[in-house]
Amino acid sequence: MESSHGCRVVVPIDLKKKPRQQKPPLHNRWHPDIPPVAEVRTGEVFRVEMVDFSGGGITKEYTAEDIKYADPSIVHYLSGPIRILDVDGNPAKPGDLLVVEICNLGPLPGDEWGFTAIFDRENGGGFLTDHFPCATKAIWYFEGIYAYSPHIPGVRFPGLTHPGIVGTAPSMELLNIWNERERELEETGLQSLKLCEVLHSRPLANLPSTKGCFLGKIEEGTPEWERIAQEAARTIPGRENGGNCDIKNLSRGSKVYLPVFVDGANLSTGDMHFSQGDGEVAFCGAIEMSGFLELKCEIIRDGMKEYLTPMGPTPLHVNPIFEIGPVEPRFSEWLVFEGISVDESGRQHFLDASVAYKRAVLNAIDYLSRFGYTKEQVYLLLSCCPCEGRISGIVDSPNALATLAIPTSIFDQDIRPKTNKVPIGPRLVRNPNIPQCSYDGKLPTTKNPCATT
Amino acid sequence: MESSHGCRVVVPIDLKKKPRQQKPPLHNRWHPDIPPVAEVRTGEVFRVEMVDFSGGGITKEYTAEDIKYADPSIVHYLSGPIRILDVDGNPAKPGDLLVVEICNLGPLPGDEWGFTAIFDRENGGGFLTDHFPCATKAIWYFEGIYAYSPHIPGVRFPGLTHPGIVGTAPSMELLNIWNERERELEETGLQSLKLCEVLHSRPLANLPSTKGCFLGKIEEGTPEWERIAQEAARTIPGRENGGNCDIKNLSRGSKVYLPVFVDGANLSTGDMHFSQGDGEVAFCGAIEMSGFLELKCEIIRDGMKEYLTPMGPTPLHVNPIFEIGPVEPRFSEWLVFEGISVDESGRQHFLDASVAYKRAVLNAIDYLSRFGYTKEQVYLLLSCCPCEGRISGIVDSPNALATLAIPTSIFDQDIRPKTNKVPIGPRLVRNPNIPQCSYDGKLPTTKNPCATT
Amino acid sequence: MESSHGCRVVVPIDLKKKPRQQKPPLHNRWHPDIPPVAEVRTGEVFRVEMVDFSGGGITKEYTAEDIKYADPSIVHYLSGPIRILDVDGNPAKPGDLLVVEICNLGPLPGDEWGFTAIFDRENGGGFLTDHFPCATKAIWYFEGIYAYSPHIPGVRFPGLTHPGIVGTAPSMELLNIWNERERELEETGLQSLKLCEVLHSRPLANLPSTKGCFLGKIEEGTPEWERIAQEAARTIPGRENGGNCDIKNLSRGSKVYLPVFVDGANLSTGDMHFSQGDGEVAFCGAIEMSGFLELKCEIIRDGMKEYLTPMGPTPLHVNPIFEIGPVEPRFSEWLVFEGISVDESGRQHFLDASVAYKRAVLNAIDYLSRFGYTKEQVYLLLSCCPCEGRISGIVDSPNALATLAIPTSIFDQDIRPKTNKVPIGPRLVRNPNIPQCSYDGKLPTTKNPCATT
Amino acid sequence: MESSHGCRVVVPIDLKKKPRQQKPPLHNRWHPDIPPVAEVRTGEVFRVEMVDFSGGGITKEYTAEDIKYADPSIVHYLSGPIRILDVDGNPAKPGDLLVVEICNLGPLPGDEWGFTAIFDRENGGGFLTDHFPCATKAIWYFEGIYAYSPHIPGVRFPGLTHPGIVGTAPSMELLNIWNERERELEETGLQSLKLCEVLHSRPLANLPSTKGCFLGKIEEGTPEWERIAQEAARTIPGRENGGNCDIKNLSRGSKVYLPVFVDGANLSTGDMHFSQGDGEVAFCGAIEMSGFLELKCEIIRDGMKEYLTPMGPTPLHVNPIFEIGPVEPRFSEWLVFEGISVDESGRQHFLDASVAYKRAVLNAIDYLSRFGYTKEQVYLLLSCCPCEGRISGIVDSPNALATLAIPTSIFDQDIRPKTNKVPIGPRLVRNPNIPQCSYDGKLPTTKNPCATT
Repeated sequence: MESSHGCRVVVPIDLKKKPRQQKPPLHNRWHPDIPPVAEVRTGEVFRVEMVDFSGGGITKEYTAEDIKYADPSIVHYLSGPIRILDVDGNPAKPGDLLVVEICNLGPLPGDEWGFTAIFDRENGGGFLTDHFPCATKAIWYFEGIYAYSPHIPGVRFPGLTHPGIVGTAPSMELLNIWNERERELEETGLQSLKLCEVLHSRPLANLPSTKGCFLGKIEEGTPEWERIAQEAARTIPGRENGGNCDIKNLSRGSKVYLPVFVDGANLSTGDMHFSQGDGEVAFCGAIEMSGFLELKCEIIRDGMKEYLTPMGPTPLHVNPIFEIGPVEPRFSEWLVFEGISVDESGRQHFLDASVAYKRAVLNAIDYLSRFGYTKEQVYLLLSCCPCEGRISGIVDSPNALATLAIPTSIFDQDIRPKTNKVPIGPRLVRNPNIPQCSYDGKLPTTKNPCATT
Repeated sequence: MESSHGCRVVVPIDLKKKPRQQKPPLHNRWHPDIPPVAEVRTGEVFRVEMVDFSGGGITKEYTAEDIKYADPSIVHYLSGPIRILDVDGNPAKPGDLLVVEICNLGPLPGDEWGFTAIFDRENGGGFLTDHFPCATKAIWYFEGIYAYSPHIPGVRFPGLTHPGIVGTAPSMELLNIWNERERELEETGLQSLKLCEVLHSRPLANLPSTKGCFLGKIEEGTPEWERIAQEAARTIPGRENGGNCDIKNLSRGSKVYLPVFVDGANLSTGDMHFSQGDGEVAFCGAIEMSGFLELKCEIIRDGMKEYLTPMGPTPLHVNPIFEIGPVEPRFSEWLVFEGISVDESGRQHFLDASVAYKRAVLNAIDYLSRFGYTKEQVYLLLSCCPCEGRISGIVDSPNALATLAIPTSIFDQDIRPKTNKVPIGPRLVRNPNIPQCSYDGKLPTTKNPCATT
Repeated sequence: MESSHGCRVVVPIDLKKKPRQQKPPLHNRWHPDIPPVAEVRTGEVFRVEMVDFSGGGITKEYTAEDIKYADPSIVHYLSGPIRILDVDGNPAKPGDLLVVEICNLGPLPGDEWGFTAIFDRENGGGFLTDHFPCATKAIWYFEGIYAYSPHIPGVRFPGLTHPGIVGTAPSMELLNIWNERERELEETGLQSLKLCEVLHSRPLANLPSTKGCFLGKIEEGTPEWERIAQEAARTIPGRENGGNCDIKNLSRGSKVYLPVFVDGANLSTGDMHFSQGDGEVAFCGAIEMSGFLELKCEIIRDGMKEYLTPMGPTPLHVNPIFEIGPVEPRFSEWLVFEGISVDESGRQHFLDASVAYKRAVLNAIDYLSRFGYTKEQVYLLLSCCPCEGRISGIVDSPNALATLAIPTSIFDQDIRPKTNKVPIGPRLVRNPNIPQCSYDGKLPTTKNPCATT
Repeated sequence: MESSHGCRVVVPIDLKKKPRQQKPPLHNRWHPDIPPVAEVRTGEVFRVEMVDFSGGGITKEYTAEDIKYADPSIVHYLSGPIRILDVDGNPAKPGDLLVVEICNLGPLPGDEWGFTAIFDRENGGGFLTDHFPCATKAIWYFEGIYAYSPHIPGVRFPGLTHPGIVGTAPSMELLNIWNERERELEETGLQSLKLCEVLHSRPLANLPSTKGCFLGKIEEGTPEWERIAQEAARTIPGRENGGNCDIKNLSRGSKVYLPVFVDGANLSTGDMHFSQGDGEVAFCGAIEMSGFLELKCEIIRDGMKEYLTPMGPTPLHVNPIFEIGPVEPRFSEWLVFEGISVDESGRQHFLDASVAYKRAVLNAIDYLSRFGYTKEQVYLLLSCCPCEGRISGIVDSPNALATLAIPTSIFDQDIRPKTNKVPIGPRLVRNPNIPQCSYDGKLPTTKNPCATT
């Protein structure tokens, strides 16, 4: 394929076309039988272009209607699979490690904008869906490496741009493991898991479904398509093959060491994020965008055995490894919010880092809302700005202690607590005007008994 | 008090004395009625010295016997309480925010060593106690700001030194809240919490007990001592008053904004760490040491209302805020291990960050053990070196995704996966020789079905 | 102009055309009467594309012939001038400060390569031309943000990409000041400046000349062209208007505060560098490339008076100010070479930072050449890699002390001095094969009496 | 020697005693025949304590009288020499490299203050002595790792603490080289060096003199003392043996690789700086203090030949190498001032980095003086705060281009140029009240013709 770029574009995107019209075709499921759309050799720098995770379903319009009624069955549109060969033309083999270096990345030229959104509680929700059940959206514009939003004024930050999803195709055996364990959770979770009462996200899992399914070169409606669609895993969770890792520092100069489960590795990528906070708390929470990756692959033959130890019932129970390099925006000063594993009702949980992190995020939202923001604005912001979510203490029974660290320099005002000495400018009173829908469901929200408003 | 230091030493430690002989006396519980041992004014830089958390119970000897039989009832020996006044002599008041700046800190001169340990599974355990049930200990020596251990050769790193514990005294009302919620957990937790099956740490909570109790100036055995000892909270978990936060970046130049619950704030500190990894996974897991803090306080009058939003049934349900400054060792390159919320048996959990982090740590241990270490050595190392534990994804049902990032430069060998090109030095084969006891209990360990050894 | 980019391209480059064929036309001189080729308003992000400084005269070929016979009269081809208006359409005025933010930058798509070269001593020379008189060239290829060269193997580094030249047009008064002071130097310098004996670079200055002159929309050969060409300043040195500042950290997220001397400011840019070391010692020493800038301007009305203090005979004797942001590759570990103001013959100079820096660079070259490189390879490398040149001491008579700090992680071997303890891989013996010409001139080289080779 | 520290104190300082009363005795000259006062072995961490460079001559008093009449003949009081042996007791030998690691450092306990001063033009001067001829002093107090000064309000910064002087003893041959070349400069410099007209510092060099000479264990007044004193080199400039390098980043975790010229290496250290800006422009310009170093040495046998290439007439013409580690305060945002090699009279100099740096510093002083400071206050500040002085361009004839980068976060106000958008707090008007003397000499000051005041 011809290119105006320094490297071969193995998967181009035509921004004027719908996802189903792209050539080569996209896919949004994990399955070993989705055929590769391209081949690359190790050492070659190649370019993959990607639509945003929604394939344009969520628009630039200043409305949250598209969020409220977004179709969750279609996420995430991925580019690939790409078959990886060594310099002699031999494909990556199961048991190898595939080294994927991110040489460069960014938004697609001419499409320099993104969105961050809160899904409606009935339609995907998010980490704090019981507090913020309404579909809400913010549009971000990019000024080179910086993003700003008319919907969240007073902040501007450089993107630690990264792909949300980088993964290899699972083998059939691995796929079966996924489907089985997730089905079991879906069937028994609500009854058996106390955490469900605190993290109200739903559904518990997303099992295979033919609805909204894209399988690349497999033609829709054929028997083969039917079979694969009923088996193929959804792309929402990260799993043994990498996938939706959402590691916010996986930016330029990083490397991923992915296990190979099928011949050729069948690498797929997507879900580009201009920026994301650790946890991606609003779920549709990064600055979601279309984009490109310039990648270079190596193969470490038999590398799974050499470098990855399986942990679980089978040798397939492994996880990828990542290498983060020196090339990222660095911040010097951070304001840090803490949460412990006591929930909003005052109930004590046992070393539960998820509950603790929920409290840390809630604390940060309340704090920052004092500087002129609505809580939804802060929730969106903490979902997409380069904040760090840490597990600070996981052994001091009964409290897990999680922290959320926010770089202070992304704000145009000093957000630190003040004593009195130096002349301080006024806190900015802003006019919140952010696309939002009503919540029409019947689930109760979590009330903070102490909230002043 | 006279001093050879630039600032007043308000709590000195005599390293030749036992904890109960220190003057002023130490305490190891939280209670509003423990009387202050010193007063300082805002703006004054003052010095607090501290014994290590065990008060010398764990020694420099190359044995793990002291770990195996450590008395958990005495942790943590704290210095204080210190009563904080403003420049006019008016004490901090409930509702104020106490700003504590860490101007300097370090080990006590002449005592430049520390220890990292795994508690026996019957005696406190730790994050991975079901995998590593044996009491184990490593001694670290300090060369200025660097630490090295004969028990974990091939690593040396600068300390991000910090106090594990900085807290204010709770009011009686807050203390009652703590005791009630923790008692409820202790009584019902094992039955109701699935997480207990994965995180085998025990006990679930540590309720007040007179055993091992130190209450500062309150004389042991008096009726007052009896009353307070039966009410006073243990110092193990972090709570609304700060306390055992174990925030590894809380080093020189940082600030803590602590809520004030009692007249004078009654600030206590202790549990000095030469260095700690996020999570402090081995429990006795930082490089534990004696030490000093040089602090400066400010009072933000009515600052709780101004800056902290309570979240929970009462206005006391708040958490402190932290500010991390530009003064810390920085690392450029990281190797990152990932875990998802699927446990070692292959069972799927729902967005459980604790389970995910457990898997990330297990993955890292297995990986690093290939470079010449025993798994216990790596477990200790990841507990105390400056590694970062992140909640990377908390919304992609059903998998929480946690990551553990390890700075590569702390090793004297290149620990990254290699392909083939440049001449690589041999992996170091080491002679592991680390103080360790047998595990004599009857609890089963968690087996990795895929483990090769 | 239509664009496939998120912002308007105000100066496009057609890579298939020669410099004189570009539309809008380029220029390579500073003069107030070179007419603007575009207008932009404050707040607008716009894109400027640029040929490399040589306009393609130096090629991708593995030969140094093009370097040896390069025509110095044509440097540097600049894009612009661009007239800056405020949002109301009023142009920047003399006395204003023009704030230029670099939102993004990079090589031109499809042209991801660059070169670093040593000019022949008779044709421009460089900082160490008396040691390395031969024309030499290295080609660099870009893998996203990384550069590597077949001519300098074993190194790879991320680019701190920046424009060498950002400047506003001088007024006639300022232009006269430049021409006068440089002419005086050219006429009297060799006799009066001892530094000329140590820094053998020549010529001393580059006075206006019609040869090779490009004046944008002013047609060559017209009387106006003749007049302007005889007055217009060469672009080689940085001056009061900014110009060839070669500040290596002026990358994404930086700002330049430029004085405005003419109506509309008339901003020009060029000389894109993929990467450069402080000092750009080989002269043609950055990784020179074509490229683009995405810029956003603000005007601070009367900002020269507000923020710049003239220092010199006139109010025009000012210098721009720069702001460097958090967005750049960071390195943690550096090897630092020192030089003092004693020259290669052993003669003592008085607080001369240029002599000291020459020694620091020579020391670094000798050191690194022990790791398998020729000295010319290292000279090129130190000219273009992200090394820092510091004036460490400028008061300790008689020695100025300059240092050159090199980030160790750009090498694939450990370049630090070793004692003995850990197993060390072999030093790499490389096959130097770098395009180089002979030196045919008659000027003597500086010999190091102690050199072993 | 007994110690309350974790390491052996090989040179203690008694703060109540004068320099000549210290035991072991101090010295302030370089000479091979000054006998060692202590021995250490490689691998041992040892502690060296040091008086400030003036040995208490400059006091804590708020007066500049002590500066005006300071005795330059006594600088710098050094601790040592220390003889270095390997683990087998064999001393370092000429030709070896001595590796000195800085494990820790700081002010002496109980002496946590420092001073920064401008010498009178008749008594040492400084980089800008022609602009600021008056003796001036600021006192700094340390709050742990932070410094603040009542004389320069509104700034507070963490110290990048380092020793100004680390060096080995010269051999007699090297000493003769020093004395010869510096004598030649002193005798001919003023006539032959144009730079002397721009850098008015005097004297040109400081030749050996018996006045104020301290030679450690050599008793004053003896024939041996007379001989050595007349030969021994002054400690002001850095030279082949290291010495007064004033490298501001040489802090905790750094290493120095020093050439060994005499048996045992004879290491001396002194001139502790709490913090210094690159260049130390005010000459007495760091935050000068007493202090301690905790060091660890290694010997690389024959390391000079292996790692250092002599450059000059003899094999002794070498310079040390430094290694800077990850342990230092880091700043993210910098305001950068530029200077070109055009002097204050408007005269063009040829690639002169010293002239360019002088202009950069003058530009920064003028800029910052607009934020409420006197120029002398800024001159002192830029001399001691962690600012970076860079040689940005050294090849663009005729202008050398030097930059001075100042971390913005050391100020309590935003010092960046502003446009208009956000509410800006008032610039602080301060009450300058800084100890200063009059200048009573007759040398003319350099006037800026454009200065408004």
